[in-house]
Amino acid sequence: MRNSSRFGRVVVFGVGLIGGSFALALKAAGKVGEVVGFGRTVNALIRAMDLGVIDRVGVNAGQEVAGADLVLLAAPVGGIPEILARIAPYLHDEVVVTDGGSTKANIVSTAREHLGESLGRFVPAHPIAGAENSGVAAARADLFRGKRLVLTPLPENSERTVAKVRLAWEWCGADICELTPERHDRVFAAVSHLPHLLAFALVCELAERENSDEFFGFAAGGFRDFTRIAASHPEMWRDICLSNREAIADELDRYSSRLRDLRSAIERGDGAAIETIFGVARAARRAWAKGPSDGLSTATAI
Amino acid sequence: MRNSSRFGRVVVFGVGLIGGSFALALKAAGKVGEVVGFGRTVNALIRAMDLGVIDRVGVNAGQEVAGADLVLLAAPVGGIPEILARIAPYLHDEVVVTDGGSTKANIVSTAREHLGESLGRFVPAHPIAGAENSGVAAARADLFRGKRLVLTPLPENSERTVAKVRLAWEWCGADICELTPERHDRVFAAVSHLPHLLAFALVCELAERENSDEFFGFAAGGFRDFTRIAASHPEMWRDICLSNREAIADELDRYSSRLRDLRSAIERGDGAAIETIFGVARAARRAWAKGPSDGLSTATAI
Repeated sequence: MRNSSRFGRVVVFGVGLIGGSFALALKAAGKVGEVVGFGRTVNALIRAMDLGVIDRVGVNAGQEVAGADLVLLAAPVGGIPEILARIAPYLHDEVVVTDGGSTKANIVSTAREHLGESLGRFVPAHPIAGAENSGVAAARADLFRGKRLVLTPLPENSERTVAKVRLAWEWCGADICELTPERHDRVFAAVSHLPHLLAFALVCELAERENSDEFFGFAAGGFRDFTRIAASHPEMWRDICLSNREAIADELDRYSSRLRDLRSAIERGDGAAIETIFGVARAARRAWAKGPSDGLSTATAI
Repeated sequence: MRNSSRFGRVVVFGVGLIGGSFALALKAAGKVGEVVGFGRTVNALIRAMDLGVIDRVGVNAGQEVAGADLVLLAAPVGGIPEILARIAPYLHDEVVVTDGGSTKANIVSTAREHLGESLGRFVPAHPIAGAENSGVAAARADLFRGKRLVLTPLPENSERTVAKVRLAWEWCGADICELTPERHDRVFAAVSHLPHLLAFALVCELAERENSDEFFGFAAGGFRDFTRIAASHPEMWRDICLSNREAIADELDRYSSRLRDLRSAIERGDGAAIETIFGVARAARRAWAKGPSDGLSTATAI
């Protein structure tokens, strides 16, 4: 940032839904000079150029980062280590780095490993704005508008660095809050990663049956909503599972134990126990849909 | 049906979402003389009168059924046996009975027990048109329009009786198909009952945590869709669980086994196995959203 009113060069690694929307949002806000994109496939980068999401396709990552004000890491979580290793030597004192990964502790530990003394330049972030569509064609300037964004700043970050990254996401329209990386991973294992796993598992279970057409043929609105997230990106979610495996395994264990209780109540015909579980769930779901009771942003409510 | 162009008196037991919508649909189609409603609470029946859903509140069930052309059983599944016992002696040769229950084998076995020689008057049905809202205030004349309706006719039904019941649901705008009661219960255990249980279980698990506000505060769009059905009616779903317990327990076992596989893949860091499950699910979910491949009605697609 040559001055405080805009970023000069922004370098985006991974020009998909998140990276593309970040670029479009900063452009729409008039807060960026040029956007340089890096990615794994040339076709996707050309498409991003055609769509006006990026201004140039990057060739030399070190050179681009050396002249950048802001770097966004928006590749699938599994691709982050290699990018960090590549850019580490070029992180000068004025550049700030953020990311859009759905897990944080693992990315922080990778960053600690690769960035060395430049670790303080990196302010991890997670925009709560997923969609089952992926790819640059799904990118929108307003994807983050009114959505939560969790920053998980590090002890090594200066106030100024955090402020810069915060500003970038604010210019995208996001509603910022802060958590520790560990707390972030714990919370999102429960409210995001687990539901995705559960939906993937159900659809896969039905799809692999011999008569799967009959089952899908009678699936209706409840199934549609429940399984919408099973159309999410397999590679992205594979990386999330691997990156946050302890918290996810723990959530899976708690959930499986809950299912065993429910199964046992059904088997013994214990209507009161079943109705209690369903009643607690309905009341909580309705209260949540009405909006938060704890003074948090309303952006996460319906 | 005094003539083939409309029903004279229709008696509805349970004037909620399904019973109320059935009454409104027949009225909107001009296919009913009067609708008489029975229910457990006077307030709900008065509300149904005020809303024009029913024309009269029934007092003497036997007398009303004796003068009826069509009877709909739309109470929660657990309330059906008592109603069947009450109306059995009054099922004359011209009346037909149908229901809106989400399970079928158990209702058929109850009917077999209570209706005796009149069993042939009863043609079981399941309209695939649930909603997380319940009660007569949620009833709509177009609830069944374009939606699947599964008839599970009995060997004791005459062709004429099945045709009458089919006509009633067709006049409501439903798209009719037939299954055996057992097949129906198997299919719906998988695509409807299990997803409801899974959603109830997740929301209950989070709601009972000490810091549940923090978890719900970060829940976003994926969680919203996944858990929409957790706002469904606890008593109705309790009854469905009790009524279809064997098929549901079996589905829960298959699903739990699938979750164990997934957990084990996550624990051993087997990205390929995880990605395969997610990839199969995504492809199946996308194919389903595009519409049925087997020539079935498109009503169940998005």
